[in-house]
Amino acid sequence: MLFSDILYLAPDFELKRGSVRVESGKIAEISVERIVESHGEVINGTNRLLIPGLVNSHCHVPMTLLRGWGEGLPLDRWLEEKVYPFEAKLTDDDVYRGSLIGIAEMLASGVTRFYEMYDHCGAICDAVELAGIRGNITRGLLSFDSSGLKGSQRLKESEEVFNRKSELVTPEVALHSEYTSNETYVREVAEYAKSRGAKIQVHVSETLKEHNECVARRGVTPTEYLANCGLFDVPATAAHCVSVTDRDIDILKAHNVTVAHCPESNLKLNSGIAPVRKLLDAGVSVALGTDGASSNNNQNLFEEMHVAALLGQMNSENPLSPAEILKTAVRGNSITVGADADLAVINLQKPHLVPAHDLLANLVFSAQASDVEMTIVNGKIVYRDGSVTGFDINDAIEKASAAAARLAGELK
Amino acid sequence: MLFSDILYLAPDFELKRGSVRVESGKIAEISVERIVESHGEVINGTNRLLIPGLVNSHCHVPMTLLRGWGEGLPLDRWLEEKVYPFEAKLTDDDVYRGSLIGIAEMLASGVTRFYEMYDHCGAICDAVELAGIRGNITRGLLSFDSSGLKGSQRLKESEEVFNRKSELVTPEVALHSEYTSNETYVREVAEYAKSRGAKIQVHVSETLKEHNECVARRGVTPTEYLANCGLFDVPATAAHCVSVTDRDIDILKAHNVTVAHCPESNLKLNSGIAPVRKLLDAGVSVALGTDGASSNNNQNLFEEMHVAALLGQMNSENPLSPAEILKTAVRGNSITVGADADLAVINLQKPHLVPAHDLLANLVFSAQASDVEMTIVNGKIVYRDGSVTGFDINDAIEKASAAAARLAGELK
Repeated sequence: MLFSDILYLAPDFELKRGSVRVESGKIAEISVERIVESHGEVINGTNRLLIPGLVNSHCHVPMTLLRGWGEGLPLDRWLEEKVYPFEAKLTDDDVYRGSLIGIAEMLASGVTRFYEMYDHCGAICDAVELAGIRGNITRGLLSFDSSGLKGSQRLKESEEVFNRKSELVTPEVALHSEYTSNETYVREVAEYAKSRGAKIQVHVSETLKEHNECVARRGVTPTEYLANCGLFDVPATAAHCVSVTDRDIDILKAHNVTVAHCPESNLKLNSGIAPVRKLLDAGVSVALGTDGASSNNNQNLFEEMHVAALLGQMNSENPLSPAEILKTAVRGNSITVGADADLAVINLQKPHLVPAHDLLANLVFSAQASDVEMTIVNGKIVYRDGSVTGFDINDAIEKASAAAARLAGELK
Repeated sequence: MLFSDILYLAPDFELKRGSVRVESGKIAEISVERIVESHGEVINGTNRLLIPGLVNSHCHVPMTLLRGWGEGLPLDRWLEEKVYPFEAKLTDDDVYRGSLIGIAEMLASGVTRFYEMYDHCGAICDAVELAGIRGNITRGLLSFDSSGLKGSQRLKESEEVFNRKSELVTPEVALHSEYTSNETYVREVAEYAKSRGAKIQVHVSETLKEHNECVARRGVTPTEYLANCGLFDVPATAAHCVSVTDRDIDILKAHNVTVAHCPESNLKLNSGIAPVRKLLDAGVSVALGTDGASSNNNQNLFEEMHVAALLGQMNSENPLSPAEILKTAVRGNSITVGADADLAVINLQKPHLVPAHDLLANLVFSAQASDVEMTIVNGKIVYRDGSVTGFDINDAIEKASAAAARLAGELK
């Protein structure tokens, strides 16, 4: 596959022009000279921009089935009366149906990898393999909730994810949060991740209430506590971090934790706004996530970039720059020789993308998911001209709608 | 034209199903019975939603040429060093080119009417007529700025707008703001609007600084001052109202002023967030606007709805409901017999619009401009399947890009 004479986002977040050749799932060659492609499609770069695939660094993709379910209720009632009862009824097939829809949304917004924390992980892996997206899949681990399910049983289910490791599936380990586990279990999860050589995903200080309750309960913040328990001894992704102290930020930096900023979900749930400027200034890696569709309400990373950029302007002394926003969105993906061919092609021939005074600003402040013409994972086209290539989207929509209607009906 | 067996947004913001017949630019019939259309297109309602056309209640559409121009500068330097010099060079043709692009964006997001305040209004009216959108067009009136142009000359130019009155062009009168005019001129503008039987557009308390400077200068708030000068004696649209007092809100209500909430622009310029919940609770009409592309950076009213809805969640006691957001976005447009046939058709067969637990929530929290399949103004299809029907968008993009590049080049 060859992208011929195309504008592309270089690793330094400058735009360059050249031809980019993909071979065996990798970026094989980048050149300003003419490249000849003998075996594969040639994509004309006129009016197009090639960007690294975007990464959705925090989501619960089966929750697309809960989109719009229980809108308008206060947080606690929404969770207790609406979300938990619905989730308790989900079957593997429901999770598969919800995942396909959410993955379709992600591919349509140029996402090539997502970080996932949920249940019924086998069904999620099935959806990942069918759609051709990359997923860092975890079974959410907790030692107590209203379901009565034991933490040890969840650890066993987590083990199943490791049997699904593939080119697309990267098994990781997820601690749900400080407030849903006792200390013994957190330490057990940390040891488990180390023994598996796996990375961690965890919710951290999503709200001030959660943060303060931990301080009252344990005398330390969630970040301090989780670090003390060894959870950050392996590379970790900490979702939200809305309410973090300066000391927390130092700890996140010291342990090289990546913060998954979820601005739309945080606004929707009125949780606050993560201190992204402070995190970046302290040298913490920040990524971008949608969270579940029930608190977003979609899996569109272009909207997430846009809202992150707008909120980043509220720091008038030093707003988040378009390059900084793009860096959170691509999370290490880059257009360099030898890198995975995880890419998205943007159609620049749109009224809202002209003029081109500042194309990076156009990308974060004005571009829309529908400007993504093509999404490529591991060198394979998985989304093109409005359609996923791995499955029939109309059939997927019909079956997801039917599953959601059935579940809603059972709860009435 | 007949929309056959289609889901539609009824005036009470409930969704109903029926057939909607359009004749001579009006909604002629709505019925749950089968309607036969003898002369005109029949649009199959399967998987589609018909909504009233959206209204962009505050914009400066030619500023699409400044999209991304001077990004990252502090507000005062951005205006003085970048925006004003660029604007000073705009010709009628530039304004026409910028307007076509901005109008294309609006039509693509289901907007059927926009409220406009700028200069070179003849060129804007030309673009309105070509594109087939409705425009409430004003010449921005001020009595002092750095250009040296006299207020009296601007009033004369405002008169030209009234010569362009048509089915699509509604001439109105705009006072730019309290801080760009002396009191004599404000009173003159108010009298002029009354004499013309025209409505008013005005910027009010966009920032706390502007608000406080007015109080320091005149002993009253901008809202009090403008009301005292008679500006609100005719129906008015007040853009922004980010920093308004409780007394201001009472005045806005007493004079039946419509507030144009511009959440994306207010975030981008770090101006704050308008107190929409308070305004609505006080009975003030609130509408929705994009403002100019230079501070947004697009003219996409679906994004504006989404951000307004997310910010509306920050009032956790009483968040803005999807119906309240939609009401701001349609500004009086409705699907009722006898109303103007200003409509948009949404394609519901999208992964991010299922399931349908709450379609209104899906519309404001998840829908995207690209879900708009068709936009109809005055019974005429002006946008369909990604293309404007009134002009060649590729030609428009090319000419707008060339104009912007020329202007940028002259300023280097």
